Amino acid sequence: MREIAINIKAQNKPGVLRDITDMMAKCGVNITYTYHFTEDVKSASIYMELEYVDNVDKFIENIRNFREVKSVDIYHSMGEIYGKRIIIIGGGAQVAMVAQGAITESDRHNIRGERISVDTIPLVGEEELAEAAAAVGRLPRVEALVLAGSLMGGKIAQAIDEIKKDHDVLVISLNMPGSVTEKADLVVTDPVQAGVMAVMAVADTAIFDVKKLGRKKF
Amino acid sequence: MREIAINIKAQNKPGVLRDITDMMAKCGVNITYTYHFTEDVKSASIYMELEYVDNVDKFIENIRNFREVKSVDIYHSMGEIYGKRIIIIGGGAQVAMVAQGAITESDRHNIRGERISVDTIPLVGEEELAEAAAAVGRLPRVEALVLAGSLMGGKIAQAIDEIKKDHDVLVISLNMPGSVTEKADLVVTDPVQAGVMAVMAVADTAIFDVKKLGRKKF
Repeated sequence: MREIAINIKAQNKPGVLRDITDMMAKCGVNITYTYHFTEDVKSASIYMELEYVDNVDKFIENIRNFREVKSVDIYHSMGEIYGKRIIIIGGGAQVAMVAQGAITESDRHNIRGERISVDTIPLVGEEELAEAAAAVGRLPRVEALVLAGSLMGGKIAQAIDEIKKDHDVLVISLNMPGSVTEKADLVVTDPVQAGVMAVMAVADTAIFDVKKLGRKKF
Repeated sequence: MREIAINIKAQNKPGVLRDITDMMAKCGVNITYTYHFTEDVKSASIYMELEYVDNVDKFIENIRNFREVKSVDIYHSMGEIYGKRIIIIGGGAQVAMVAQGAITESDRHNIRGERISVDTIPLVGEEELAEAAAAVGRLPRVEALVLAGSLMGGKIAQAIDEIKKDHDVLVISLNMPGSVTEKADLVVTDPVQAGVMAVMAVADTAIFDVKKLGRKKF
């Protein structure tokens, strides 16, 4: 399966992008990701990741033939550039320490050709944290979620159930009071180690399988 | 303008999502973001952010009426949940220190109701760094890019020109050898301070305007 990423710059007129996506659908091309941004009153850009493009040159030519299209550029996909994502959510002090471990460890894997990103948001409040945790299931390329706090339960624990139902995301929790430690795949006391383990668990260049650990609390 | 985010779970059949997006276009709804994922052989989900939805209840009802649609859920948008993004790219040791500053500072703003995320990738190599820096222009919600390295120039400096041409992204560079310091809006020697300043510059709850600083190197 040939995957490509393109950015189309076109006149900012209604219907232009719909006509282009219609053409793509007719060619049997599958659009897996789009992000549309207005550059100014006259121009809009759409970034797209596509599957099942048979003849790339012909396909790009077809897009360029639309009168309203100004340019089409081909790129590597976000998966190829930024790779797998580790998401860290929680209180600032602990998010920063988990990030320290995760960034340092992903450096060691990325240097050997992998691509692992470490994305974070410090947040407070059960509702806010639960919403951010659940939304991880709607983000592209997420492989692991680390809950970096000192008290998490209730709706945050429910959010883990919600993600787990539909997505294959590893959940690591710091050792803390609250029911998230029961829901997590792995519970780690040291925040730096939690970050390192999250990366080890998703890296192809590491031999680390959470399922084979024998116990889940460290 | 009413913005909404929805997740549609539907049978994984060709044409289903195209029919739904056709209906949206006919209603004058603008799709700003989509992310499509296959859950299993039978089901697919599409997450969408939409503008210009006049009657939300009626609109959701219209989607539910498609025979292949299993469920439609409404969410806050990624902008409302994860907010503005600071992207940090460079060598592991320095990315981790900049992240330390940025996460700690964004904690202070998020606690007052803002949403600022700190997203990172440690990488090596001029080509790799240049590609990751340029791709920042194709990521949603990015407000600032921090270049956290010890030697960056050439294609990485060109990538900054490329982003700046089309996007309103603040570029902060650590003080280092290489031409990126000439292209950056701000050059900071201390990595923790570079992270803090990146967040201050994009936060609504901070009074910090890079343009008013008088000099750009600290």
